[in-house]
Amino acid sequence: MSDNQADLIVHARWIAPVTPDSGVLENHSLVVIDGRIADILPTPLAREKWQADDPQTLDSHLLIPGLVNAHTHAAMNLLRGIADDLPLMTWLEKHIWPAEGQFVSDSFVYDGTLLAAAEMIRSGTTTFADMYFFPASAARATVEAGLRASLFCPVLDFPTPMGGGPEDYLRLATDAMDQWRHEPRIQIGFGPHAPYTVSDEPLEKVLTLAEELDVPVMMHVHETAGEIQMAVGNTGERPLTRLKELGLLSPRLLAVHMTQLTDDEIALVAETGTQVVHCPESNLKLASGFAPIEKLRQAGVNVALGTDGAASNNDLDMIGEARTAAFLAKGVSLQADALPAAEVLKMATLNGAVALGRDSEIGSLEIGKQADMVAVDLNRIETQPVYDPVAQLVYAASRDQVTHSWVAGRCLLANRQLTTLNEALLLKNAQQWQQQIAGAEQRD
Amino acid sequence: MSDNQADLIVHARWIAPVTPDSGVLENHSLVVIDGRIADILPTPLAREKWQADDPQTLDSHLLIPGLVNAHTHAAMNLLRGIADDLPLMTWLEKHIWPAEGQFVSDSFVYDGTLLAAAEMIRSGTTTFADMYFFPASAARATVEAGLRASLFCPVLDFPTPMGGGPEDYLRLATDAMDQWRHEPRIQIGFGPHAPYTVSDEPLEKVLTLAEELDVPVMMHVHETAGEIQMAVGNTGERPLTRLKELGLLSPRLLAVHMTQLTDDEIALVAETGTQVVHCPESNLKLASGFAPIEKLRQAGVNVALGTDGAASNNDLDMIGEARTAAFLAKGVSLQADALPAAEVLKMATLNGAVALGRDSEIGSLEIGKQADMVAVDLNRIETQPVYDPVAQLVYAASRDQVTHSWVAGRCLLANRQLTTLNEALLLKNAQQWQQQIAGAEQRD
Repeated sequence: MSDNQADLIVHARWIAPVTPDSGVLENHSLVVIDGRIADILPTPLAREKWQADDPQTLDSHLLIPGLVNAHTHAAMNLLRGIADDLPLMTWLEKHIWPAEGQFVSDSFVYDGTLLAAAEMIRSGTTTFADMYFFPASAARATVEAGLRASLFCPVLDFPTPMGGGPEDYLRLATDAMDQWRHEPRIQIGFGPHAPYTVSDEPLEKVLTLAEELDVPVMMHVHETAGEIQMAVGNTGERPLTRLKELGLLSPRLLAVHMTQLTDDEIALVAETGTQVVHCPESNLKLASGFAPIEKLRQAGVNVALGTDGAASNNDLDMIGEARTAAFLAKGVSLQADALPAAEVLKMATLNGAVALGRDSEIGSLEIGKQADMVAVDLNRIETQPVYDPVAQLVYAASRDQVTHSWVAGRCLLANRQLTTLNEALLLKNAQQWQQQIAGAEQRD
Repeated sequence: MSDNQADLIVHARWIAPVTPDSGVLENHSLVVIDGRIADILPTPLAREKWQADDPQTLDSHLLIPGLVNAHTHAAMNLLRGIADDLPLMTWLEKHIWPAEGQFVSDSFVYDGTLLAAAEMIRSGTTTFADMYFFPASAARATVEAGLRASLFCPVLDFPTPMGGGPEDYLRLATDAMDQWRHEPRIQIGFGPHAPYTVSDEPLEKVLTLAEELDVPVMMHVHETAGEIQMAVGNTGERPLTRLKELGLLSPRLLAVHMTQLTDDEIALVAETGTQVVHCPESNLKLASGFAPIEKLRQAGVNVALGTDGAASNNDLDMIGEARTAAFLAKGVSLQADALPAAEVLKMATLNGAVALGRDSEIGSLEIGKQADMVAVDLNRIETQPVYDPVAQLVYAASRDQVTHSWVAGRCLLANRQLTTLNEALLLKNAQQWQQQIAGAEQRD
């Protein structure tokens, strides 16, 4: 027996580490000490070199880095399916904004984020980038669930249930940064909503503060053709040009959606190192347009992947989102070899970590990084036979095949059972919110 | 207690019958006698009027008509993931055709179809339209699994493992029709592969025989821009024009894919009553193009839905396919209200039954029709809260939420357990085929 004591050993049939290369290791083991990856080696060697109290043998599973959902609105899980198949402005103005105006509160955000956290854990996400009201409540739910999050505090020109205007929002954001600065799993950033809802002065303040505090900024940019036409009509300028002039385009900015891009704008995004977050299912469902992902990738832009919120997608399933991203990149580029399976897995993991500036800690399975990882069982009718485990993951597996999840070596899902959250309670709570919210919708 | 004895009663939280209207019945029960739907009524009334030995109470479930997969190549499940992210011709010529040439046989088709049947049952499909070699073996597997199928016997100009040319293929087809004519769950049709692989003479024979025997015809039509360019280069004519001149365009023809259509061709398809089968995920993954589904629907064309084979999609998941169809119709038409959830459910059920000429028996939950139906449990983290059960099914549910399936009142899936097939044996068998086929790929 060996002297090398580990906190956790996972013996996996396959490991897709994502870096240093996109290959797959067969019959390898991953060793965790103090929440970090201490070793990755062939299983026979691991059995000689390491021991742990309760080694996990996952002999039909693919172990991958925990998925990084680079854009969502977690608490909106409570509004999932409240209004579908509607034009964007009808959806927002007649359903989402009234429901939010009436119901969004600390408790709505806490309960909604917990429900979303359960969905994310059950579908392989270990880190999510959120953009929603009351981020301190979202942080509390995230810590309770055991997930990792980057929470982008909304900034808008107008009043919301959270505050009266930009000054309030900026103060809430910096307060949240102070409050959570000692919790390594929580990162707080600024989330100016969109070019059409935030004017120059608050955007300049966001930029100054973000640089001083060294935090990222997330913004919906060029989501629809309509918002660009409106900006051009009002100011003669496309929103991306305005953001450039304000100095916002940089590796610090996560520009979400980006369905409307000229070739010059693609070059600008690449030159400035701006991060792009692709949300293909939301873009399809809301008929926003097709983001030119292959062109962005070829220009050298880092493209991450996000589900958007459950009121617009309608799920937080990153495996499904990865499949849609791969499908759509091929369909839009008319190239069947565009965005292959290994690339889309990287988009759903490491690229998200890079976009958030957290890739020194997460995003791939490398020695020294945090042990954020999930196991997917491929021994199912739906994913047999296995010729290529990564292709099976992207093109054939579904979220229910995620059997285990760990964040910093802590197990959040064990054989499909949540270890940090009470599933029955979450379901009951969701039904209670449904009764309140649906009742109000019917009265309108 | 009532005198009315039923074979099966399902008390469901929700029923979406698809016809006569697209609404949802809440707290209703469905009664089955002799394999057919005998009654649909509010549960309190059902409890007074009907009794059954073992009534099923599914109090968080949505009951829908069994899904109709209107185009697949079931046995290709054994080749799932063998070659992805490749241009169509490389994929076909370097991987699929060589593997088929070497391995396709009666036993390959029987084993592959059984594996596919298990996947289909577990994901809510009760009827599938297949187009593959050795259809008699596929029929045997289908009957064993308890599913309903329409099997389209391939016709091609050239030799394959199944025969030497058109005469062989036509004889095999009519033999299969004779063999299976007393099995109501099996329908046999003609499957001329595509305009570019079948010349005029065999197509004329197919048409004559199909009319004499009153059976449907399925063909891949206008799948890619390349095949149309090739036809125009060779003959000056687009394939659809040729099919029109041959007299093939009629309600008897299921034209699969149809990604390349002019407005005149859409009008022609509508005028002739030709059925269209839409395979959105295959079209995306193989970068074939976008079928103009909203335009076809507005022209009055019956559009059914298919997954295509698992070597090109890579699954037989009709719930996922329905979601992709809804997403893509919105994305392509730039209208968020295109192809709403209830319409896509109809596409995945009744429209498929219509396309196959089987809608007097299946495709909706109506009194007198066959009791082909599936239950989907919505009381999951991923589909709570429920504001609209059909929207939750289409936009948020996944295949693993299918808990029960019945064909003609016979239960094929009970609480996720297959009742007609041995899951462990199927998995083992798939792995054995994988070893043979992957071994041959590596030697090449």
